[in-house]
Amino acid sequence: MEFSIERAALLKAVAQAQSVVERRNTIPILANVLIEAEGDSVSFRATDLDIEVVDQAPAKVVRAGSTTVNAVTFHEIVRKLPDGALVTIIGDTASARLSVEAGRSNFSLATLPREDFPVMASSEYEANFAAPAKVLRRLFDKSKFAISTEETRYYLNGVYMHVADFDGRQVLRCVATDGHRLARIDAELPENAGNMPGVIVPRKTVGELRKLLDDDDATIAVSVSETKVRFATPGITLTSKVIDGTFPDYSRVIPVGNTKRLEVDAADFAQAVDRVATVSSERSRAVKLALDEDRLVLSVNAPDSGAAEEELAVAYADEPLEIGFNAKYLLEIASQVDRENAVFLFNSAGDPTLMREGNDETAVYVVMPMRV
Amino acid sequence: MEFSIERAALLKAVAQAQSVVERRNTIPILANVLIEAEGDSVSFRATDLDIEVVDQAPAKVVRAGSTTVNAVTFHEIVRKLPDGALVTIIGDTASARLSVEAGRSNFSLATLPREDFPVMASSEYEANFAAPAKVLRRLFDKSKFAISTEETRYYLNGVYMHVADFDGRQVLRCVATDGHRLARIDAELPENAGNMPGVIVPRKTVGELRKLLDDDDATIAVSVSETKVRFATPGITLTSKVIDGTFPDYSRVIPVGNTKRLEVDAADFAQAVDRVATVSSERSRAVKLALDEDRLVLSVNAPDSGAAEEELAVAYADEPLEIGFNAKYLLEIASQVDRENAVFLFNSAGDPTLMREGNDETAVYVVMPMRV
Repeated sequence: MEFSIERAALLKAVAQAQSVVERRNTIPILANVLIEAEGDSVSFRATDLDIEVVDQAPAKVVRAGSTTVNAVTFHEIVRKLPDGALVTIIGDTASARLSVEAGRSNFSLATLPREDFPVMASSEYEANFAAPAKVLRRLFDKSKFAISTEETRYYLNGVYMHVADFDGRQVLRCVATDGHRLARIDAELPENAGNMPGVIVPRKTVGELRKLLDDDDATIAVSVSETKVRFATPGITLTSKVIDGTFPDYSRVIPVGNTKRLEVDAADFAQAVDRVATVSSERSRAVKLALDEDRLVLSVNAPDSGAAEEELAVAYADEPLEIGFNAKYLLEIASQVDRENAVFLFNSAGDPTLMREGNDETAVYVVMPMRV
Repeated sequence: MEFSIERAALLKAVAQAQSVVERRNTIPILANVLIEAEGDSVSFRATDLDIEVVDQAPAKVVRAGSTTVNAVTFHEIVRKLPDGALVTIIGDTASARLSVEAGRSNFSLATLPREDFPVMASSEYEANFAAPAKVLRRLFDKSKFAISTEETRYYLNGVYMHVADFDGRQVLRCVATDGHRLARIDAELPENAGNMPGVIVPRKTVGELRKLLDDDDATIAVSVSETKVRFATPGITLTSKVIDGTFPDYSRVIPVGNTKRLEVDAADFAQAVDRVATVSSERSRAVKLALDEDRLVLSVNAPDSGAAEEELAVAYADEPLEIGFNAKYLLEIASQVDRENAVFLFNSAGDPTLMREGNDETAVYVVMPMRV
């Protein structure tokens, strides 16, 4: 194998691949990236056995071939090479070494045979569709904060992407919950996505996927089967197993009869919650909301350290209500609101509360209250 | 106690004070800041028993008085208050509470009696002098990287500030070493500093002091005794115990007979060292320097992961030499050079090497080689 490649193109491709590699793993080959040169491009493939990412970059291939090399070391070297450098990469099977040359720098890296590298089996996908990067970004960005970190509830350790009925039509929906709060985000259903099976996309995949979605104008090719999901741009293919479990029936959790309506400037609200929560002890970060006509008083009472109170002018026309929440949950939910006011719909101090942005029902959040 | 103060002035004063407070400590009062209001200013005092910092800020004092309150919580609250807010602070001795009001925010914090707060005993200082912030910044910034972190060699856990003879005149000198490398930085002796006893300024004090030195035009009042050192600006007074120990006779470590002279662009050198060190194992980050006429080859050989080599054009006219160094030490030393080329003076592969910036002898560094 021998090829030359621009340092910038190489860095971009290797950066994405190496981020999938788990820092601590007991199988040496999983620390490596598989480099395959053929035709006029080179691919860089990395996997943790659950996720596989393949990055393609244009290169001047002198001699086709393939090998594997430590992903982190290789990435570090490329990162430290001067900008604009032309990098020549030569694999020597006999000595099991990969030579990396750029200007007056010369590296010789240990390799492992490409045959040992676990390439993910190809699959039949039941649905193949295209979605704008912007749409996918919104679906995942607004839901991922609610992903559970409890390993025992593994079926909540991801975002449930599926087709749902809403208001008499089908939508592409992402839902995440940890039992304390829930996010349900809808988007227009892309063409050909109607027969997609519902899949739970694991947290790490959501993180890796995010890197494909930065370009507003990009279109992502999405493929879904019962066991796998694939997201692809022209240069990068991200394939991931999905979580083998059943996502709970979340619709029962979303309150429909909440009528007490609070409307508040989301940024003012978040800042006030953050301020009063300062005095609370780390463990129970409980904030009390006391509602009266057009008036919201946020308060925290922490016997050890002190008390805090803040009043906000709001729109509220229902009967007085006192309800408590975890400050962290309130802050995370309020930070999802970016265009309009936050609208909260309450029932009683013991019932789940609904939050949305203005009257937009394509992004709704549920948060469980706590006793204060 | 009752006073009003601008949020910005309050934040600045409290930020500096709270940074001295140790996050983990078993004596509750040490987590607090002592607030004292009198005349037309308020002072904020914090201590870890070794360092004391007092910040003074102008305020409208309605009722003089004093109390202590948790420094971290108080700082967090002030930080989160909206910019431009006027803050009213009222201490109530009977209820042992401090009230903090700004706009519609209202906090009530637990206090501890001011009598319990350990105020550092005042001292007689043997030397009092003024030094430009810029001069002190250079002395400490260029030496602190060499401070030892070995607790058993406590007398190396700081910067040795003292008066020394150099080239027939007296200089203000800072020295730090951890046995592997050494930094010796000289500055013109300020007026009245001649009778200053040599003191070892602890690492934490060096860090806190740094915050007083940002203003190029500021003048710092320095006071030194055998046991304490004090640095003061009009608003802030930092008092610190010095390390009770004897700094070793560093002059014996500084080589005087090294004649093999290498001159190299410091940035190019640092980048090359960083690159070749990438392949080395974490533990022994040994880089080999092979010198020949106007030619430097840096190399690393790590049996497990690979090898790296890089050539640099340099100025070198002595006999060939091979010498090894810890990559981290070389990088730290090279990063001290900011104006001119780095000049290395070698003797043999087993002897300490001297480094300086061009021909400037007011900042010299010594680094021990390692076997490669």
